[in-house]
Formats: sequence, structure tokens, C-alpha cells
Amino acid sequence: MEKVRIGIVGVGNMGSNHSRYLTAGDVPDGDLVAVADINPDRIDWAKKTLGESVQCFDTAEDMFKSGAVDAVIIATPHYFHPPLAIKAMGLGLHVLIEKPAGVYTKQVRELNAIAEKSDRVFGLMFNQRTLSSHQKMRDIVQSGELGEIQRTNYIITDWFRSQSYYDSGGWRATWAGEGGGVLMNQCPHNLDLWQWICGKPNRVRAFIGFGKYHDIEVDDSVTAYVEYENGATGVFITTTGEAPGTNRLEVTGDRGKSVLETRNITFWRTRESVSKFNKEYKGGFGSPEVWKCDIPAGSGGEGHKGITKNWCDAIRNGSDLLAPGTEGINGLEIANAMLLSAWTDDWVDIPFDDDLYHAKLQEKIDGSTRAKEAGGKVLDVAGTH
Amino acid sequence: MEKVRIGIVGVGNMGSNHSRYLTAGDVPDGDLVAVADINPDRIDWAKKTLGESVQCFDTAEDMFKSGAVDAVIIATPHYFHPPLAIKAMGLGLHVLIEKPAGVYTKQVRELNAIAEKSDRVFGLMFNQRTLSSHQKMRDIVQSGELGEIQRTNYIITDWFRSQSYYDSGGWRATWAGEGGGVLMNQCPHNLDLWQWICGKPNRVRAFIGFGKYHDIEVDDSVTAYVEYENGATGVFITTTGEAPGTNRLEVTGDRGKSVLETRNITFWRTRESVSKFNKEYKGGFGSPEVWKCDIPAGSGGEGHKGITKNWCDAIRNGSDLLAPGTEGINGLEIANAMLLSAWTDDWVDIPFDDDLYHAKLQEKIDGSTRAKEAGGKVLDVAGTH
Repeated sequence: MEKVRIGIVGVGNMGSNHSRYLTAGDVPDGDLVAVADINPDRIDWAKKTLGESVQCFDTAEDMFKSGAVDAVIIATPHYFHPPLAIKAMGLGLHVLIEKPAGVYTKQVRELNAIAEKSDRVFGLMFNQRTLSSHQKMRDIVQSGELGEIQRTNYIITDWFRSQSYYDSGGWRATWAGEGGGVLMNQCPHNLDLWQWICGKPNRVRAFIGFGKYHDIEVDDSVTAYVEYENGATGVFITTTGEAPGTNRLEVTGDRGKSVLETRNITFWRTRESVSKFNKEYKGGFGSPEVWKCDIPAGSGGEGHKGITKNWCDAIRNGSDLLAPGTEGINGLEIANAMLLSAWTDDWVDIPFDDDLYHAKLQEKIDGSTRAKEAGGKVLDVAGTH
Repeated sequence: MEKVRIGIVGVGNMGSNHSRYLTAGDVPDGDLVAVADINPDRIDWAKKTLGESVQCFDTAEDMFKSGAVDAVIIATPHYFHPPLAIKAMGLGLHVLIEKPAGVYTKQVRELNAIAEKSDRVFGLMFNQRTLSSHQKMRDIVQSGELGEIQRTNYIITDWFRSQSYYDSGGWRATWAGEGGGVLMNQCPHNLDLWQWICGKPNRVRAFIGFGKYHDIEVDDSVTAYVEYENGATGVFITTTGEAPGTNRLEVTGDRGKSVLETRNITFWRTRESVSKFNKEYKGGFGSPEVWKCDIPAGSGGEGHKGITKNWCDAIRNGSDLLAPGTEGINGLEIANAMLLSAWTDDWVDIPFDDDLYHAKLQEKIDGSTRAKEAGGKVLDVAGTH
């Protein structure tokens, strides 16, 4: 086939970012040919900025049905990701959605069921999977080099946001507009990486501050304890209230400890199995010999552009997706489980009752005193994730 | 007064360690003049090793009443610390007890009440308080340099112990013999440092593995979430099942983040208050300017010897104790609260009901199928904490 003819739904913060590298010709298998936005200001911006070769539509549906596009990137507020993706696939279009896949598992499970029956290429903008350091950390764990996992610890608190950020859009940080706070907006990447590298926990107990550091109604401070099927334990900590914050993933296993911190990886590798040493050593005090290994984590990773290139390559040449859309449910399940645990002050097993979560979220929306908008000002996201 | 005439109760692992630096003359204000041990093998060892100037007693009480000593170091199994300390103070002796102050708060609160009425010098072997890096970390937090605390995270998992360690004494790692595992034997230091540096939490929710990595009945894997009075949150993670483990304390506050890792301190200092920036910044994305500061943490700290010197100096010259005995309750309260939280699978407030904890512990002892000994082989503790 010819180059993939791409349309973008929503040219707000992230959509306009995607339009920039596409119009710059950075994605060899794809061309930006259209955008759709319900906000007339954004259409004016698109007309001025993107040139005459890019058609503009007032609604996603008009663009989907126009015949002008083969594939669409959906960069709307979160709630609209699943219904728009379902509609686009139903009209025969390939789909790449921004993270999160959706706001609640019930909605995303429906999307996945449709995607699995479709022959369209369905990708997800998990751009952090493109970073060589994340891929290498996954390699160390998944290849078995680290041995069976004992414990994970992800402190990902470098998501500082000021009150002015939250004030920039009425939909931001509301149950109606985003369906959550730091877990739904900033952390989909980290929750995905965590489960991509370490596997998905099966039990969650979370402690969450809602509007702890900001005048918002949703989560901006999270500490969660989790357990995995093999008995390993884990902790996930995030907030938008700290500066400068920390970005550090520690994973321990039967062969030592691997730490990824700000793109550097160190692997303290035990020369023998820790559990074997534990059983067989006879000397009282004593521990396995450890080799401190600097791991070549690289500095590569094309980010958003890399995911879009991979998606176009998959459409045109059938290559594998780095971030299949159906995998979006994994991190979302963890996020929903954390919120449900905090709301109920109790354990939540994964998988949990999708209908229960949906009902609890709807209660939050109904009980909210915040404006229930979907829109807002456009911020410059250059340099963000 | 003349040099302090010191007796040691229990010359097992730790007691014999104290005898070594004392007989080497490393403590200028004190002389080792006597030891007491109920184990004849240890008395034989003492007679052979410590020389004729050190009297040997079969029981602590005989030594206390002998008139030969002014002050005693109590280095018995944990349960005996409070009753022996109470007895010694009652007989007019100064007391230095090994950690932990005791095994359950009820017992230690009784000890503290008596100590507070006594004019004797009552110290606790919190030797890790002598390390310059711990003192400096405390200074950064307590001086206000870090601003109001937002979050603490202590991963202290470098306490690897093999099964042979646990098998070295029948009293080890049993409810009857030690009253707990990693929390009661290895972590009293860290729980004390944590509260000494960051303050005491007022609410705990803990998740504990009992005999997770070893054939023991007590705790060898702990993850605890805590909350502080000002709303700050914290996490404490420990285990004896990992190698090489981690020793990293991260504290965040309104002026940035300070990390103590293996005696190095880095302070990422925000140029202005984070909360002020949060409120006043108008630019959407953006965060406070941060200066990465390498803090001179030093490499000093005399450990056990330093605590004993300080205690003798307090007895002889009235100087302040670095680790007053009555402060032993603080870390113990946290340890007991963690165990109680895991046993009840629920929140525990601090302070909690001392009698309830004592009753629950007694249930564990009564229900134990392990030998209920107090004694055991002597290990070489050189190089341990």
C-alpha cells in the first residue's frame, strides 16, 4: 500500500504535538492528511499551522467517514478514547489511541473485545516503551537474569504539576473530565512499564490523597502495596506534589537487585542463587558474593514519534507492535484497583468486578461539585512525557 | 568519681563484643570489672579470655548485689532487658541495655516509668546514632533545611540472614525467644533512626511475611505504610531474605528531597518553597529550580564503643546521652504496631492498646510449635550492626 493517510482526532496538547513531527516528515510510512476537533479555535490553529494539504473536520465522525484517512490517532480527553476507537475500527480504520486506553476497565474491555475481532492495527501511545533503558530493564527481568522476582519498588514522583496546570482546563483533574488524577493522567506510562517489566500484581492495597497538594478533587498522592502471584511484593509511589521527585525502579530477585534510576541501570548480581545460598550456607553470618554490574542502558528511544512509526510500519508492512492497544487494560486495571482500594479502605483483587468500579466512579462523578467540562486551554507539552 | 566499674550481663554474641573493646582500654571513663552469664560455657570463655581482673558471676543478680560494679551493660536475649534493667536501677546501678529496649511496649513503658524516677544514667545501645551520616541526615530534616516533611521512604533490606543463622540458637526467630523477627532483632536500629530523623508516625498499615524466606515462625519480610501527624506519608521496607539488599532513606519536603544511601547524602534543594511555587506559578507546566547538593556526610562514628563511651561520660561527667534509654519505646511502638496491623489485617494507631498487643503476642507464644529456649550458640558478630 501507499503511505498511511493519517488523521488526528483532537489537536489539543498531545494531538498538536503529533501533528508537528508528522508534518515534518519524521514518520516515513505515514502522512498527516486530516485533523478533527470540536473546538473551532483549534481548527483555526490547524488551518494556520498545518497547511492546505491537511483537511480539517468539525467532528471525528465526519473525518472517519470522509474516505480521506486510512488510520487515526485519537488524542481527545480520556473518556472518549474507547468509543472513538470502536467507531473508527467499525469504519475500517486503523487506530492509535493516546494513553490511557480508557478511564475504567469495563469500557476498555469492550474496546478490546471489538479490537480482537477486527483486522485493523490497534496501537497505544505508550511512548516510554521505546526508551532503551526501559527495554533493557525489562530484558534483565524477563530473560531470567535477575532470577525469580522477590520485590518491586517504583518511586515515580517526578510528575510535579502546579495549580496553574490544573486550572488550565475545566476537564482536568475532575471525575467527570478525566476519571482520576495522577493515576489516570501522568501514570498510565509508569503503570504500564511496571507491569510490562515485572508482571501484573494480583492484589492491591492503596493509600491515596485526593486533592492533597492541589485544589482538585482527584488523586494527587498515591502509595500502593501489591502482591504478585508468586508471592513477590511491590510498592508503587507517585504524586504531582513533590519537586524534584524521584524516578527509580528497584526490582529484586533470586539473583540480586536491579535498579533503573533516571535512565541508568545497575545490576547487583549475586554469583549464586540467593535461595540456594540461604539453604546451604553453614556459617551463621554470611551472604552471597555480589558483582556490581553497570548495564548498558543506552540513551535511545524515539518516544511518541517512535510509537507512531512502529504503528505505521505495522499497518504497511505487518511488523509487530511495540505497544498493542489491547495491552492498555493492564495498567488501567492496576490504576482502577488502587482507586477502588482507597475508596473502600480495603484490599482489591485483580481482576475485580468491572461493574462495581464503574458504579463507584459514577458515584464520584454524580457527587462532584466541579464543573463537568471536556475541553480547555492548550498547553505546550514539549518536554513532557 | 573514679572510672566507672562496668559489668556485662550476658557474654554471648554482643556481650563478648562489648568486652573486647572494654578490655582493650578503648573507653577512657570505664573499666570492665565483671561479667555474668547463666551459661557455664560462656563463663569458661570469660575466664580464659578476659583475665583475672574481671570477676565472673553465674547470675546477673549476684553481680548486681556484689558491690563490684557501678554500672551494667545488659546484653541478654531481648525479653530480659526490661526486668534486668529495672532490677539493676533498683540496686543503684547505671544501666546500658542492648537494643531493643524490650519486646512489647507494656514492658518497656514500665521500665521507662521507673527510669524516669531514678537518678541513674539509663542508656540504649543505638550505636547507629553515632554515625556521622545519620546525624547529618537528621540535621537536614530537623533543622528545617528540607522544609516540612511530605514523604519518607526507607528501604532497609541489607539484613540478609541464612537459615544457618536462625538455626544457631533455639531462641532465635521464635515468639517465645525473641518476640519477633527482622523487626525485633535487626531493625530496632532502623526504626529508631527513622523516627529520630523524621519523627514518629501516628498510623500504620503493615504487610508482613512470616517465615517467608526461612524456616522460622516470625517476620522476615515487611512492607509498612505509615502516616504522620502533619499528613506526610511514609513507607518502611525490610527483609532478611534479599541479597545484597538496599539501604536507602529518602525524605521529601517542601524544599526538595534528601537521600541517604550507604552513607552518602544528596540533597536536591528547591530554590524556593514547593508549596509556594505550586500556588503562585502561572505557566502551566513548570517546576521549581533545583540545586543538587552533595552533603558532607563524613565517615565517622564509633558504633558500639561510641555509645559506651558516651554513657560512661554521662555517668562520670554528666554529659548528655546520645541515645537515652527512655527513647527505646519509640521504635518499639512502630515495630509492635506493624506486627499488630499484620495480625489484624487492619490499621493501627500509635499509641495503641499496650495490653492488647501483649495479649496477642502471648497468643503467638502459646500457639507456637517451636522450642521455647533462651540461649544458643555464639556467633562472631564482628562486622555486623
